[in-house]
Amino acid sequence: MPEFDLVIRNGTVATASDVFGSDVGITGGQVVALGRGLGAGAKEIDATGRLVLPGGIDSHTHIEEPRGGPTVNADSFASGSASAAVGGTTTVIGFARQERGGSIAQGVAEHLERARHSRIDYGFHLILTDPRPEILEEELPRLVEQGHRSFKIFLTYAGARITDDQALEVLAAARRLGALTCIHAEHHELIEFHTRALLKAGLTAPKHHAWAKPMVVERECVHRVCAMAEALDVPIQVFHVSGGESAEEIERAQRRGLKVWAETCTQYLVLTAEDLDRPGFEGAKYVCSPAPRSRADQAALWEMIRRGVIGNITSDHAPTRYAGPDGKSAFGEDAPFTRIPNGVPGLAVRMPVLFSEGVVKGRIDLPTFVSITATHAAKLFGLHPRKGTIAVGSDADIAIWDPAKRVTITQAVVQDANDHTPYEGFEVTGWPETTLVRGVPVVEGGRVVGAPGHGRFLPRGPYEMI
Amino acid sequence: MPEFDLVIRNGTVATASDVFGSDVGITGGQVVALGRGLGAGAKEIDATGRLVLPGGIDSHTHIEEPRGGPTVNADSFASGSASAAVGGTTTVIGFARQERGGSIAQGVAEHLERARHSRIDYGFHLILTDPRPEILEEELPRLVEQGHRSFKIFLTYAGARITDDQALEVLAAARRLGALTCIHAEHHELIEFHTRALLKAGLTAPKHHAWAKPMVVERECVHRVCAMAEALDVPIQVFHVSGGESAEEIERAQRRGLKVWAETCTQYLVLTAEDLDRPGFEGAKYVCSPAPRSRADQAALWEMIRRGVIGNITSDHAPTRYAGPDGKSAFGEDAPFTRIPNGVPGLAVRMPVLFSEGVVKGRIDLPTFVSITATHAAKLFGLHPRKGTIAVGSDADIAIWDPAKRVTITQAVVQDANDHTPYEGFEVTGWPETTLVRGVPVVEGGRVVGAPGHGRFLPRGPYEMI
Amino acid sequence: MPEFDLVIRNGTVATASDVFGSDVGITGGQVVALGRGLGAGAKEIDATGRLVLPGGIDSHTHIEEPRGGPTVNADSFASGSASAAVGGTTTVIGFARQERGGSIAQGVAEHLERARHSRIDYGFHLILTDPRPEILEEELPRLVEQGHRSFKIFLTYAGARITDDQALEVLAAARRLGALTCIHAEHHELIEFHTRALLKAGLTAPKHHAWAKPMVVERECVHRVCAMAEALDVPIQVFHVSGGESAEEIERAQRRGLKVWAETCTQYLVLTAEDLDRPGFEGAKYVCSPAPRSRADQAALWEMIRRGVIGNITSDHAPTRYAGPDGKSAFGEDAPFTRIPNGVPGLAVRMPVLFSEGVVKGRIDLPTFVSITATHAAKLFGLHPRKGTIAVGSDADIAIWDPAKRVTITQAVVQDANDHTPYEGFEVTGWPETTLVRGVPVVEGGRVVGAPGHGRFLPRGPYEMI
Amino acid sequence: MPEFDLVIRNGTVATASDVFGSDVGITGGQVVALGRGLGAGAKEIDATGRLVLPGGIDSHTHIEEPRGGPTVNADSFASGSASAAVGGTTTVIGFARQERGGSIAQGVAEHLERARHSRIDYGFHLILTDPRPEILEEELPRLVEQGHRSFKIFLTYAGARITDDQALEVLAAARRLGALTCIHAEHHELIEFHTRALLKAGLTAPKHHAWAKPMVVERECVHRVCAMAEALDVPIQVFHVSGGESAEEIERAQRRGLKVWAETCTQYLVLTAEDLDRPGFEGAKYVCSPAPRSRADQAALWEMIRRGVIGNITSDHAPTRYAGPDGKSAFGEDAPFTRIPNGVPGLAVRMPVLFSEGVVKGRIDLPTFVSITATHAAKLFGLHPRKGTIAVGSDADIAIWDPAKRVTITQAVVQDANDHTPYEGFEVTGWPETTLVRGVPVVEGGRVVGAPGHGRFLPRGPYEMI
Ligand SMILES: [Zn+2]
Ligand SMILES: [Zn+2]
Ligand SMILES: [Zn+2]
Ligand SMILES: [Zn+2]
Ligand SMILES: [Zn+2]
Ligand SMILES: [Zn+2]
Ligand SMILES: [Zn+2]
Ligand SMILES: [Zn+2]
Repeated sequence: MPEFDLVIRNGTVATASDVFGSDVGITGGQVVALGRGLGAGAKEIDATGRLVLPGGIDSHTHIEEPRGGPTVNADSFASGSASAAVGGTTTVIGFARQERGGSIAQGVAEHLERARHSRIDYGFHLILTDPRPEILEEELPRLVEQGHRSFKIFLTYAGARITDDQALEVLAAARRLGALTCIHAEHHELIEFHTRALLKAGLTAPKHHAWAKPMVVERECVHRVCAMAEALDVPIQVFHVSGGESAEEIERAQRRGLKVWAETCTQYLVLTAEDLDRPGFEGAKYVCSPAPRSRADQAALWEMIRRGVIGNITSDHAPTRYAGPDGKSAFGEDAPFTRIPNGVPGLAVRMPVLFSEGVVKGRIDLPTFVSITATHAAKLFGLHPRKGTIAVGSDADIAIWDPAKRVTITQAVVQDANDHTPYEGFEVTGWPETTLVRGVPVVEGGRVVGAPGHGRFLPRGPYEMI
Repeated sequence: MPEFDLVIRNGTVATASDVFGSDVGITGGQVVALGRGLGAGAKEIDATGRLVLPGGIDSHTHIEEPRGGPTVNADSFASGSASAAVGGTTTVIGFARQERGGSIAQGVAEHLERARHSRIDYGFHLILTDPRPEILEEELPRLVEQGHRSFKIFLTYAGARITDDQALEVLAAARRLGALTCIHAEHHELIEFHTRALLKAGLTAPKHHAWAKPMVVERECVHRVCAMAEALDVPIQVFHVSGGESAEEIERAQRRGLKVWAETCTQYLVLTAEDLDRPGFEGAKYVCSPAPRSRADQAALWEMIRRGVIGNITSDHAPTRYAGPDGKSAFGEDAPFTRIPNGVPGLAVRMPVLFSEGVVKGRIDLPTFVSITATHAAKLFGLHPRKGTIAVGSDADIAIWDPAKRVTITQAVVQDANDHTPYEGFEVTGWPETTLVRGVPVVEGGRVVGAPGHGRFLPRGPYEMI
Repeated sequence: MPEFDLVIRNGTVATASDVFGSDVGITGGQVVALGRGLGAGAKEIDATGRLVLPGGIDSHTHIEEPRGGPTVNADSFASGSASAAVGGTTTVIGFARQERGGSIAQGVAEHLERARHSRIDYGFHLILTDPRPEILEEELPRLVEQGHRSFKIFLTYAGARITDDQALEVLAAARRLGALTCIHAEHHELIEFHTRALLKAGLTAPKHHAWAKPMVVERECVHRVCAMAEALDVPIQVFHVSGGESAEEIERAQRRGLKVWAETCTQYLVLTAEDLDRPGFEGAKYVCSPAPRSRADQAALWEMIRRGVIGNITSDHAPTRYAGPDGKSAFGEDAPFTRIPNGVPGLAVRMPVLFSEGVVKGRIDLPTFVSITATHAAKLFGLHPRKGTIAVGSDADIAIWDPAKRVTITQAVVQDANDHTPYEGFEVTGWPETTLVRGVPVVEGGRVVGAPGHGRFLPRGPYEMI
Repeated sequence: MPEFDLVIRNGTVATASDVFGSDVGITGGQVVALGRGLGAGAKEIDATGRLVLPGGIDSHTHIEEPRGGPTVNADSFASGSASAAVGGTTTVIGFARQERGGSIAQGVAEHLERARHSRIDYGFHLILTDPRPEILEEELPRLVEQGHRSFKIFLTYAGARITDDQALEVLAAARRLGALTCIHAEHHELIEFHTRALLKAGLTAPKHHAWAKPMVVERECVHRVCAMAEALDVPIQVFHVSGGESAEEIERAQRRGLKVWAETCTQYLVLTAEDLDRPGFEGAKYVCSPAPRSRADQAALWEMIRRGVIGNITSDHAPTRYAGPDGKSAFGEDAPFTRIPNGVPGLAVRMPVLFSEGVVKGRIDLPTFVSITATHAAKLFGLHPRKGTIAVGSDADIAIWDPAKRVTITQAVVQDANDHTPYEGFEVTGWPETTLVRGVPVVEGGRVVGAPGHGRFLPRGPYEMI
């Protein structure tokens, strides 16, 4: 009689601290044993020559998310979760959104319904666009109790932004409730000011999107939110830090002893503002916010990752199609940058790009890769040790990784529902062969085999960062 | 026949770079000759053993300024200018104010009328509380042409604050017009947030005024306005930097190559937050914004002055009486700090305190004293070389200074129209004996002899700082 | 038939990234299995309510080390390794020393002989006092091949110091050989200068030891060695960083992208310069180099640990007796500080003090504790993954830790061969009950049960830090 | 009867703080009056359209200075002082040198003899190569009393360098005597190490001179000397700061409150390391120490000048000929860089280059130009207010400057005794027409008219910097 449901045999296991040769025994969807020469499994996977990695946690993803206005997110939970698993990611944290004047509880309920089709596990940050007292005092305590332990606020975007006054009330609520607030930090009025000036001057090409929001716009707001966190003594997570100056503000806050955490995203490590200036309207595919920066900023971000200032890397997956009535070209290929829907997809490529550009190129070691793709996010967002590591008792969320496989990224490879990838043609070394979610294969040999609905909602506990 | 209208004989002249023994020959209200053994003057002053210093420029003063609400500024131009001259100051820059919905040109006209009674020369910063397009595009160009070359904006105070959006429009107008924008920089919403929390908690004493606006409130806003200045590439003057953290933001901006200038005020160099906690309601006398900080902040400010990061020191003279219906105690001695009118007087003490605490105590040398009390402001605000130095062709604005005189500051000494001074009992070494404005004594032997109306409006040119 | 030699059952295992409930199966001195409900062990330990931690690595210890001059190290390998194990440490890295004019290979051979009596595993840094070409080119390559992969140099101390010129040659050899150079960094001439001045002034008490080597002495040298490492592009480990200014230089080097690593020591986190001023000659017990600093420096060091700037904490165990002909009082209790032998013991207290002051007081989390006491040192000094973690295939070096046990430190508790401990009376929460070295108990229930000679020499591989 | 010996009429006078239209009345070699419409002079100069500037002080010059070894300085005092005056400089501070084992008093006596032929005024820094107790305790007090109030030490160069131990003794003596120590700061052993490696690798071209002494070599030593100054609480002047990293160390020291002053030199503002790589052996003309750096370093230095971190600019005039037995090519045009004598000339071009690159290009204003070329040095080296300004009582050392004159620099223009200038072909706007030393023309209309021997030795007082 087999001792385990599944044994992954002869692989090299990596955690955020260690790398060691070990079989992995899985029963009931959990890792129950690590050891060499474990007893038989009902099923076995030979991982000789492979890395056995904690499945990735992508803590910033937009999947099947309604947007204000005409544009629609290309991915459903079925397609988005498939693409995530293709790239080794086994948990996504997305967003449930409050409509202004509306209820966040209702947004959660609706989003839970949509997410039922996910193939991988999931949780939500609660986007608060209208933090009225009844929301903060009645809805949020219940939602936090149900495991929705993080909020998201925007300080820019006409349809979503809240004022500093409201942001302080959200932060104060987060402090009371032990929730973590994630912040999109750009100086709204400066972006508007620049945009008006650019349009007036006829500077409307995709590349001018980056002109409208230069680094100072982000640096200002990062400092501001750090100051608000300092005044209230409450932790925050700064989203999508895109370059050196903003990262320096994060580091200054950390040096003051604040619990200011930060992510950057795949695109800020491999794309640049020059991509926005590709011939024709091709640059539209690279329009996202913040805008991609320079090679020097990429180097600065890697350095900040190496030194732990920036702790996790997400995709900010926002799959806007190029074609069609919701696409980046919906208003024609002469449309001003203000009419190009924001967002780039990235669920599938996040881990392979980080492995290839990070580990293979010698910028980071394997435990750091595990940390920035999984463990840090798990700790920050209350999923550890259930998620984010390979340890006894953890969910058997595992990416079996071929470290030598060379892949040229194409739309066919990423398998999301978008019609393009901004990483088209990008070459990486290392790719996951098999992705398990709670011991069940969702991807096998690169093929999506997991069924929609396999994913489970993850109630989350408090962040455990000191 | 006398060669000069007036000769100051045998004194030691100081400028922002030099100290030398010289007579000063004055004719037509100007310095026309420097030399030893100058020919006779119609009038002569023996300055043996005395310093002959440029009269001070106090570039941040509130005199006879209407305030929203019930409180009235204690000083008229007659009394305020007398007190300034008592302390060696010969030029004040005050404020003409736009009422919301109103015209700044009208505010200027009214203030010019009031200022006609000044005994010393004067100019105005234009307080913009409602920068509508017609104000920015029609009124301001005319006013700048008339020599009102600096604007003042508030980012806090319910009655005066403008939004970041409006601030950007003001900065853009300043850039177009070659005017300098002065900024009161505190994070409005944080102050409000703290204040609500303090009141709710019953923490309402004068000292809680400082709790409502800790350093982070100011540091945040200083960084923000520096970022806005950086984005628009326009110089700014940050008002009343009150401690180390804010000064560090100023320095960081300067290191980036920005033309970010800054003042601090007398009170931030000699008062502390502990003064707000004096027995009874005495602390109310020290309620001003920003709030006085700590000894460590004082040391940091002196260091920033020594290294030139902070270039001029003003009084932010805001003479609110203690008694009476407009006074700090108007709402009783149990009034919460929110009902205590802000502001401390300081016109008379600014130069003596800086001389005593700076030069006599060895923190700065005499040329630096001249620079921070006169020359730097003259250059920044377009008054140089007419004002702010003793050079051929300059106005004969001169303080004849007894460097050894010991004075204990009292209300009788300062001679303004207030009913108290927060510097009561403070001892200084060094005091001006005689103050000349364009060659005419306004103070002689400590006695005010200049007539109201001797002062002249000063049209100002562009700042000449590189 | 038992499945394992030993099973540690029902404990909570911690690594540098994870904390999880698991049994630990040990066979042949190695961890062979992790899991719940593991099969039987020939021997079993019930760890219910206990932490199961990687045994500590103390990478800076002086045990049975000959010193120039009359003083003798109080500990033999038998006593020192017992004390280490009492405090949860299972590996020590000590020092083999080259005498000037002599051979380092000979120093190694002699020290290997002494170390045969160790109860726990060990390796050596090679102290190079005379790096002649034949040493660098002939002896070192052989020694590195034998697993002595780290060097130690002193830039102060008359008997041991080498010049910058020699230091560069050592660093160049380390680069060629893939060895890591550890550096005692204090500006020698400044110490000498200060010492001459103090003695001349009659300032000879123990506390004046700290006056002779203020922080600037260390900061200077830390910057200097970072610069040398930068110029040669070679990693270094800076020993015993004692306060904020030096740590800041470490951080600046790391920000430049350098592989500059650093340790601090227990004493710099809990002792201060005031301890040197204890009544009578008691202060002599606190004479070590660098000298203990201030509370502010302690806070700065904790902050640097929290942010990962300082990666490991050692004891710099240097057990100089108080009494006797080799003791701190050998020259009488009026002896000038220059005649007090340096050094404080600390092998036993290192981990308990860090657990209590760090984890229990909330300054760091448990994985960070594991990292700074074991994992980081293992990686830095080429012992990972054999040592420094609990993972399949690792040596079963384990401290079974009672996290709630309260202990008042006394000489009886620490069980080394010294006659005093500078931590006498210090109270800690948390203490190891049982310490295993390769699966064999060396301490059980606080009692030393491991035999001298159980320890093994550890040949070490290259550092694996990126 | 004329009222003055000389009147400079109708010019625009500039000081370090002011710019104003004024005649200058000169009698007895001093400025005795400033004013418009001054009485007649026995001689008059029409300065209409001209700037009337304080004659420059070049506080770092090597003129007719014996060097260890075969090379001889191209300039005599007659030729060097002529070249200086051609460029508007009226005072030079050179060096009297102690031979090892010898007396500095003798060095001074000999150098005073040589300097008798100078056309402009002069003083000496005392180069201490062998600071034995009798030198420090007997010779130096007498020399300081005679007005030699500054020392110079080298921390590199085989023939001149002193150890850190000796440096501390010199600094201590300087502190006792109120003298200022100037320091050539480069890490000697690193230079030697690099040089050995480069020669071994056959990398011997002029450009490899810069490879032997990269920025880190200088930054290290700058930090070290700042630390020594901090430990002893004594002011220092760091010579020839050549780029951003070193300047940052200067600034950090100033932020700590230290009296650490610094110069940079003309060559570090307009030459770069690429000049060392000119075709053939041309690069040898640019071999000086420190080596010229990059454009980014030039920008950093200008920024440091603008913010006052670096206070004066010198030429470090070291006129080594290209041809001849003492020249840069003495060992052939294939000579390794180690055999190329160091040093570039620059007396004549210093002020014109700074005026053109600084004032004309908008990097600094005119008062700053006066400060960095004259006033700051005067204050630092005890010559103020006699020298370094135009004020009543000051020596009439004046450069009458045509701000619009365009000059292409050639060897014929600079009029020193060298056979080349590294600035050949460099174009500047602005040049002095007439240079007066104590009221006597040394250069008139660009022609040297001052006689050798007109110069006077300047006994100097203590620095007056706070
Ligand atoms: Zn966002
Ligand atoms: Zn997003
Ligand atoms: Zn204000
Ligand atoms: Zn004000
Ligand atoms: Zn040491
Ligand atoms: Zn040691
Ligand atoms: Zn030099
Ligand atoms: Zn030189």
